[in-house]
Amino acid sequence: MIGRQSGSLDGFESNSEFSGPGILRRSHVGSVGTVLASSILFTDHYQLTMAQLYLRTGLAERRARFDHTFRSYPDYGTHQAGYAVAAGLAPLLDWMRSVSFSEEVLDALRGIRGSAGTQVFDEAFLAWLGDQDAFSAIEMFGVPEGRIVHAGAPMTMVEGPLALAQILETPLLNRLNFETLIATKASRVAEAAMGGGVVEFGMRRAHGAGASGATRASLIGGATGSSNVGASLDLGYVPKGTHAHSMVQVFMAALGGELEAFSAYAETYPDDCLLLVDTIDTLESGVPNAITVFEDLRRRGHRPVGIRLDSGDLAFLAVRSAKLLNDAGFDDVTIVLSSQLDEVNIWQIRNQIAIEAPRYGVDPDHLLRRLTYGVGSRMATSDGASSLDGVYKVVAVENDAGEWEPAIKISDSPAKIVDPGIKQVWRVYDERSTATADLISLADEDVSRRPLTLHHPHLPDVSRTLDVDHVSGMEPLIESVAKMDIPSDPREVIEAAQARRMADLDRLDPGVRRLVNPHTYHVSHSTALSTMKHELAARHS
Amino acid sequence: MIGRQSGSLDGFESNSEFSGPGILRRSHVGSVGTVLASSILFTDHYQLTMAQLYLRTGLAERRARFDHTFRSYPDYGTHQAGYAVAAGLAPLLDWMRSVSFSEEVLDALRGIRGSAGTQVFDEAFLAWLGDQDAFSAIEMFGVPEGRIVHAGAPMTMVEGPLALAQILETPLLNRLNFETLIATKASRVAEAAMGGGVVEFGMRRAHGAGASGATRASLIGGATGSSNVGASLDLGYVPKGTHAHSMVQVFMAALGGELEAFSAYAETYPDDCLLLVDTIDTLESGVPNAITVFEDLRRRGHRPVGIRLDSGDLAFLAVRSAKLLNDAGFDDVTIVLSSQLDEVNIWQIRNQIAIEAPRYGVDPDHLLRRLTYGVGSRMATSDGASSLDGVYKVVAVENDAGEWEPAIKISDSPAKIVDPGIKQVWRVYDERSTATADLISLADEDVSRRPLTLHHPHLPDVSRTLDVDHVSGMEPLIESVAKMDIPSDPREVIEAAQARRMADLDRLDPGVRRLVNPHTYHVSHSTALSTMKHELAARHS
Repeated sequence: MIGRQSGSLDGFESNSEFSGPGILRRSHVGSVGTVLASSILFTDHYQLTMAQLYLRTGLAERRARFDHTFRSYPDYGTHQAGYAVAAGLAPLLDWMRSVSFSEEVLDALRGIRGSAGTQVFDEAFLAWLGDQDAFSAIEMFGVPEGRIVHAGAPMTMVEGPLALAQILETPLLNRLNFETLIATKASRVAEAAMGGGVVEFGMRRAHGAGASGATRASLIGGATGSSNVGASLDLGYVPKGTHAHSMVQVFMAALGGELEAFSAYAETYPDDCLLLVDTIDTLESGVPNAITVFEDLRRRGHRPVGIRLDSGDLAFLAVRSAKLLNDAGFDDVTIVLSSQLDEVNIWQIRNQIAIEAPRYGVDPDHLLRRLTYGVGSRMATSDGASSLDGVYKVVAVENDAGEWEPAIKISDSPAKIVDPGIKQVWRVYDERSTATADLISLADEDVSRRPLTLHHPHLPDVSRTLDVDHVSGMEPLIESVAKMDIPSDPREVIEAAQARRMADLDRLDPGVRRLVNPHTYHVSHSTALSTMKHELAARHS
Repeated sequence: MIGRQSGSLDGFESNSEFSGPGILRRSHVGSVGTVLASSILFTDHYQLTMAQLYLRTGLAERRARFDHTFRSYPDYGTHQAGYAVAAGLAPLLDWMRSVSFSEEVLDALRGIRGSAGTQVFDEAFLAWLGDQDAFSAIEMFGVPEGRIVHAGAPMTMVEGPLALAQILETPLLNRLNFETLIATKASRVAEAAMGGGVVEFGMRRAHGAGASGATRASLIGGATGSSNVGASLDLGYVPKGTHAHSMVQVFMAALGGELEAFSAYAETYPDDCLLLVDTIDTLESGVPNAITVFEDLRRRGHRPVGIRLDSGDLAFLAVRSAKLLNDAGFDDVTIVLSSQLDEVNIWQIRNQIAIEAPRYGVDPDHLLRRLTYGVGSRMATSDGASSLDGVYKVVAVENDAGEWEPAIKISDSPAKIVDPGIKQVWRVYDERSTATADLISLADEDVSRRPLTLHHPHLPDVSRTLDVDHVSGMEPLIESVAKMDIPSDPREVIEAAQARRMADLDRLDPGVRRLVNPHTYHVSHSTALSTMKHELAARHS
């Protein structure tokens, strides 16, 4: 059994060179505090082998242009996103500025041995890396965080020395794909919550240290807070949370019961008292005990914050709990719902409340407005669609004459053919000021002519035209990062992103925003791009 | 629109205290290099509010016991896991030893303000935290990494001062849930690969910095290498990878074409030459060009490593490519497959090859043995099941007399009732030395009596008995972490875990190992645990 899975097969050693664990001359392992995983070596190995090849062939400092584009919206199975929310740019830039090809990094690379037992990376390459000021020679372009972005339209562009732009591929994709994925999910959750607070609770099941990226992306996507203490503080937010079932259990085992636990909580946090009421029995024990404690707080001049429901039929329990709270004069306290929430569950719960509340003498609108949602792993891991399929493709390389030469990758699948050349993405607004299409053009192309022709991205003969009456405006989406003026305060960055998201959503067709089975938003090509792409493809196939 | 999602509703402010962004007196934000997200504050806020409450009520240093248990195996939709692979313990322990309640951490907590504008955490609590030597008062017990673990049986146990054990909940769950999730997926991929190498390629779509945890967990689960440079080096592995489509595209745009790109690669890496052959056309261009380059390498005394296929019908292309390579005398070079691989795709590809290879004059067994798999986002994000539902529940608290008092949480859902008390988990082997059940007992219970009675975990009246002839052995799974003797070399830790995984798989019923629709493995309760649990539940409901 062990042999069967070890990669070493009797008398057949074909793939050991590539797939085996390999030999490493290690100098850094064991030295406390050295974590190459978060250094500039947070990249795929082939980026470095290609970079060395580029150095040997004289291409390392040749300017190249790469586009980052996601191919499809997250599809959660029973529901699908019709748009995505750009996120991750500021942390990527921070990371790029914080790393370097330090001596420690170069020593680690020096230790990697190939099949012949010699250094994979030679001293000339290591010296070249050491001479680079990390990624400072790279010029970045992109869509500001929080903006709505669409499948098939580039959202980030990178220009710079080929070898460095290649090494940047992996960290860029990692950060932007992940945060965009989570911001998109969070935006859907926030849309379902219809103005109710959304608190991100996901770190216990998030992907390791990725939990903190999920916190940030959730905030961009519309969450109003997070339970993640460290990440919230880093971002300038107050972390959220009150107590778990364990507190009630501890009191049951050691110091009385639920009422004693609630009283102790109210004593400790008289102005921030939010009680979890489902450890024993929500309606028979939890809510009545909470009301007892709230009455005491009220007598002492404090305002109770609310209750949290974390199991069972949340809609039914919210209605019944609201009735008990209202009857006791606590019609203004928050009801927090948690437990496996996502956009669809929230939507269903709200619908059920609208139907069920009147039967119990509760005003549904009033109840819906007092709800807050604690949303955990389904948001922090984008349950159902755990990755965004963003790719990073070379689209142009400078030739010997210093001119851009468009690059293309042919594929049997038309959607995978790379759109060549230096480009811009335009958002086209119709006569209602609703975004009607994203148009990808060549960067130096004049797109002001009317009627405007929008070509299908894969089918050269399919196009539609918009005359001047149907275009109220066009806006370039891709900006130079150097000119973006990103605030140094991370909370300001997030708040600006939230504002962009809401402004863009406001101009998005409701059919595209729909949580289930959304309309397809059009991403089209300009005449010049369409012509160039199909000519290049024809030349190479 | 902005107002509708901001959490501030006209004339109705009920939930702003809980869900809003809050006010923070910040001292640390902006100081470069301060990242609280990776400090001891990598935890949920309610752990800290509960810890302070425990201090005020005299419970902070009361010994408590928590169990970490996952409730269900990952369910990927069309296929499900029948077992899981424990992972994440060593990195968790490293993290616990590396963090502290530093002045910087305490200052950050000091800045958090509640609704009344005052410090949430008072100076007495901050002083108490500052006196703690991080988590050194915590005693840990668990299943060693790499072992097969089952839903419903505790895999980690924590004992120590209540307040600290509570703060540890989130980082423990985060690390163990995530790495166990990925190691489980990787083990399934390795089982499907039937001994072929599995290289983890997932970092570009993994969850931020979680990419490196995914690399480690993939190795524990059976991957033989990873493309992640930093994480591989940290773990003592040689990172894997050769080149991307972009290298071919760059040569097409700037310096000739695919053949020139391949030649440059072979020139740079003559002993590690593995070529990606699908940038233009796999069978018409890529493989023929690779063969040309391989022939040149062979003439110069080097042994080519192989080719990689990254698009199209991988099974068909592998067969056709193998035929071309065999005819040119390269029947020993590796064929690496990549592109959206997971355990089911690998299984299908291998089946298709078994059927299709003979039609093209290729020996299927020979071809299957030369395959290596580059597996990306579907493994690194556990596609289809993006989180493991592990929970951490208090099971006992010391009473005033210094005796353990079992703790329980009641629930309408029997599977969610916490198993109380200080426990051990036994693996019961049958007469074939196959694991037949995991038996959860009280720690001080004698389980040597025969026949052995196994109680259903939720239904007190359902049990089965195993007589002495049907029990070949019983092994305690939970060990004291202090006695585990975990190597300081991270690669040794991983290799030991891999060996445990393979030994455990060997003793697991093939029906439980099945990739689709596996048999349910039995997790049972001992007589003493079953009796105690149902008595306690009856007392509280």
